[in-house]
Amino acid sequence: MKRESSVAKQEKTAITPVRAENYPEWYQQVVKAAELAETSPVRGCMVIRPWGYTLWENIREGLDAMFKATGHVNAYFPLFIPVSFLEKEAEHVDGFAKECAVVTHHRLEADDDGKLVPAGALEEPLVVRPTSETIIGATYAKWVQSYRDLPILINQWANVVRWEMRTRLFLRTAEFLWQEGHTAHETKEEAWDETMKMLEVYKTFAETYMAMPVLTGEKTAAERFPGATNTLCIEAMMQDRKALQAGTSHFLGQSFAKASGIQFQSRDGSLEHAWTTSWGVSTRLIGGMIMTHADDNGMVMPPRLAPSHVAILPICRKPEDEPAIFEYCNAIAEQLRTVTYHGRALNVVVDKREMNAGEKSWSWIKKGIPITLEVGPRDMASDSVFVYRRDTTRKDRYGQDKDAFVESVAAVLDEIQASLLARAIKLREDNTCTIDEWDAFCGFFTPENKDRPEVHGGFAMSHWCDDPACEKKINDTLSVTIRCIPFDRTDSGKGACVVCGGPSSGRVVFAKSY
Amino acid sequence: MKRESSVAKQEKTAITPVRAENYPEWYQQVVKAAELAETSPVRGCMVIRPWGYTLWENIREGLDAMFKATGHVNAYFPLFIPVSFLEKEAEHVDGFAKECAVVTHHRLEADDDGKLVPAGALEEPLVVRPTSETIIGATYAKWVQSYRDLPILINQWANVVRWEMRTRLFLRTAEFLWQEGHTAHETKEEAWDETMKMLEVYKTFAETYMAMPVLTGEKTAAERFPGATNTLCIEAMMQDRKALQAGTSHFLGQSFAKASGIQFQSRDGSLEHAWTTSWGVSTRLIGGMIMTHADDNGMVMPPRLAPSHVAILPICRKPEDEPAIFEYCNAIAEQLRTVTYHGRALNVVVDKREMNAGEKSWSWIKKGIPITLEVGPRDMASDSVFVYRRDTTRKDRYGQDKDAFVESVAAVLDEIQASLLARAIKLREDNTCTIDEWDAFCGFFTPENKDRPEVHGGFAMSHWCDDPACEKKINDTLSVTIRCIPFDRTDSGKGACVVCGGPSSGRVVFAKSY
Repeated sequence: MKRESSVAKQEKTAITPVRAENYPEWYQQVVKAAELAETSPVRGCMVIRPWGYTLWENIREGLDAMFKATGHVNAYFPLFIPVSFLEKEAEHVDGFAKECAVVTHHRLEADDDGKLVPAGALEEPLVVRPTSETIIGATYAKWVQSYRDLPILINQWANVVRWEMRTRLFLRTAEFLWQEGHTAHETKEEAWDETMKMLEVYKTFAETYMAMPVLTGEKTAAERFPGATNTLCIEAMMQDRKALQAGTSHFLGQSFAKASGIQFQSRDGSLEHAWTTSWGVSTRLIGGMIMTHADDNGMVMPPRLAPSHVAILPICRKPEDEPAIFEYCNAIAEQLRTVTYHGRALNVVVDKREMNAGEKSWSWIKKGIPITLEVGPRDMASDSVFVYRRDTTRKDRYGQDKDAFVESVAAVLDEIQASLLARAIKLREDNTCTIDEWDAFCGFFTPENKDRPEVHGGFAMSHWCDDPACEKKINDTLSVTIRCIPFDRTDSGKGACVVCGGPSSGRVVFAKSY
Repeated sequence: MKRESSVAKQEKTAITPVRAENYPEWYQQVVKAAELAETSPVRGCMVIRPWGYTLWENIREGLDAMFKATGHVNAYFPLFIPVSFLEKEAEHVDGFAKECAVVTHHRLEADDDGKLVPAGALEEPLVVRPTSETIIGATYAKWVQSYRDLPILINQWANVVRWEMRTRLFLRTAEFLWQEGHTAHETKEEAWDETMKMLEVYKTFAETYMAMPVLTGEKTAAERFPGATNTLCIEAMMQDRKALQAGTSHFLGQSFAKASGIQFQSRDGSLEHAWTTSWGVSTRLIGGMIMTHADDNGMVMPPRLAPSHVAILPICRKPEDEPAIFEYCNAIAEQLRTVTYHGRALNVVVDKREMNAGEKSWSWIKKGIPITLEVGPRDMASDSVFVYRRDTTRKDRYGQDKDAFVESVAAVLDEIQASLLARAIKLREDNTCTIDEWDAFCGFFTPENKDRPEVHGGFAMSHWCDDPACEKKINDTLSVTIRCIPFDRTDSGKGACVVCGGPSSGRVVFAKSY
């Protein structure tokens, strides 16, 4: 067999480069081809395009319902934080002062050359919120007098700004959208329960809606949120086997309550500080979904969050066929819109754009719509549709009776959702190893091919003696961090630290990460 | 009759002062008593409390559905605007440069005294968006190549900042929440139709959801959005007879397309600039609802937007009654939650807080919940409820069979909605006058009592010669502006300008305003 024909047999892909060639560049190309987002003229800030923003709206709607079901309400707090507020918690300000947008003036004035320059200097500079513990804490301090005023269970959907030097769409941007829950409690136990409960909400959401399996656990001191007593997290494995921290839930102890003065008269009459928590997920989740599900043809949307579920493409070879085929397609769409999928009506697009049929079909593949229906004169004549499931290959397309399709569509979407989750679980299982020796550990995280530094082992379940020095050595040597200490760490049995051989109470999760 | 007893007979009100005593202060007290919002430690920025924020969520949901039904999609654009972008449209920058938050640095650093000061100066200062025409225009310029790329019909829900010197909760704050639609079209006609269509959406929303009647029309040149060719508006009359501009829809002509370079190849092959529009409403709508519906006992929520529809208050005089009454109340709540009111399930609260029954009842009156049910042992025994409608007086409360109440609740809510709208229409009709003479015009807008400058006539329908000088004279003399030029202006017949006697093609709407 000639080499040339072998190359020709390779399937053509919609995204160049493919994952195996250059994963980071593939990611950027998927974001672009799927029309999810793009860079803006403002350094590090992104434009979230309608297809990406609808995905975010669906994420928000799903999470919001879960927050409300667990007793939370939404509110809104100021965009700006006076510098003096940020300073109230020492670790907190250290964590955020290095990368924040600072507002120093409140108007623009023309200088002698007619150029607009800042004028009206503020007495105290304001920081655009990187997170809102301090400004919300100041408000809670006013609201809380007695134990009867607790708990406060509030969430905020907002934009925040962290002046990151190296940005990547969705994964790390200067401005991003998120939710931040901020709660205040009477007792330590109640605050801890809240911290754990919201982590569980995130895990359930990630797995059920995003079809993205996650590990849960506690961060080491080195990886904690600045000022937190404990940081819990959900961690997912991307297709390049790196970890993505997808959400965090912080137990803040009394440190922020002390910094903000959230005090209450307790049941026994004494004056006490409240116990607080905070927890958040952001538009980073979209980056996680891309790197979990997208393939060499573009985005793959999990049906539970897909902006649209079904695209219907009329295939009209002769212009005179158009009216009849359009009518048939519209009728199918109307029928499909009566189907309820997990509490909401199916979202269906009939794509009547004037363009090349192949190009049109690929545009939906790249966008990752779960199901595409192609409908030509023959399909119409036989009252059927030609079905393509985004989780299968183009070769697997099949014709089906129209009514049978409508009847089964919700079940098929659930099948797609399940297949995406199963695939992601398998990827994680295939790339998670139990490693006890330092050499093997280093080998696991060392790319075989120096041109492809992103190709390495995955998650290593290894022993650690709890010494930050060993953690640091691993990070310095391999750029590998402890992603989380599993809650059931001791179930893995005692052992010897992979670095120093010291005693370990159980394995923790090591990985390279975003 | 003794004077004292006459005073005693006056109904006690929950809000002090009452509207007739001091309207501006009454407004602030309603916002506070209803727990809608409060000032924050950040100058001019408000904290929107859960009750107020849920109201905003309901406004957003209602409008968003209307935007989507008219073919729009949501997206998200950067918070920051480089100063050079703002400068591209000369009138625009003049309008906003005087009151914008300017970001000049991207980190904080400790100075010699350990005090944090701005560091890392930006090459070009950024403005926190006061509105997004320029930054969105820059993106549209990239998206649009051909007439096939038009129209672009995008809306954004976002926070914006305008550094106002005198702020008032909801009505005028430095940071506020809003939506801003930005559309680009192939032809002038299409852009104009869009401008009119969205004004109509705002009018429908104001009247149907907010129960707030509005006048529509065009702004004079003096009152236009900076850079717009035409600004259309909805204007409502508040209870102090001042006008509130509640929403605007701008026809931007080609000026912003030229400033941003939004060009396309037209059907005949020539290169043309797009025609654009923008339109927005903000959290100011909440201020409008308060000043339209609230009374001397606090907020009155129109049912279509109310955060909750029914509060059920268990009245337990003996502790041993509690379990049975709570159970009865919970059962009523469950029954009510199965009722659909305009597409969503009724929101019902069972208020089990331990507090004085009168205080509890007043807390819901102040919050403006449409219906309160009081349920004591006798009500339970007779399978009934004691009903209070917020649009009536406390004296009008009535007992009703429980099932009959549940059966009728949606209709009663619609009655409340209708009664609020009717009351607001009547207020406007009672305080709108046709005035032809300058002296009468001045008298209409001059308070009889100098201690109560807010008490004046209302809306004057008067002739105007279209000369900005006459408009300015009225503003300078009386602080009265032309709120809008009605679309059907000529229907009112020709006449003589109320200032100069020059020819007028029809009456326009004059009023004091917020």
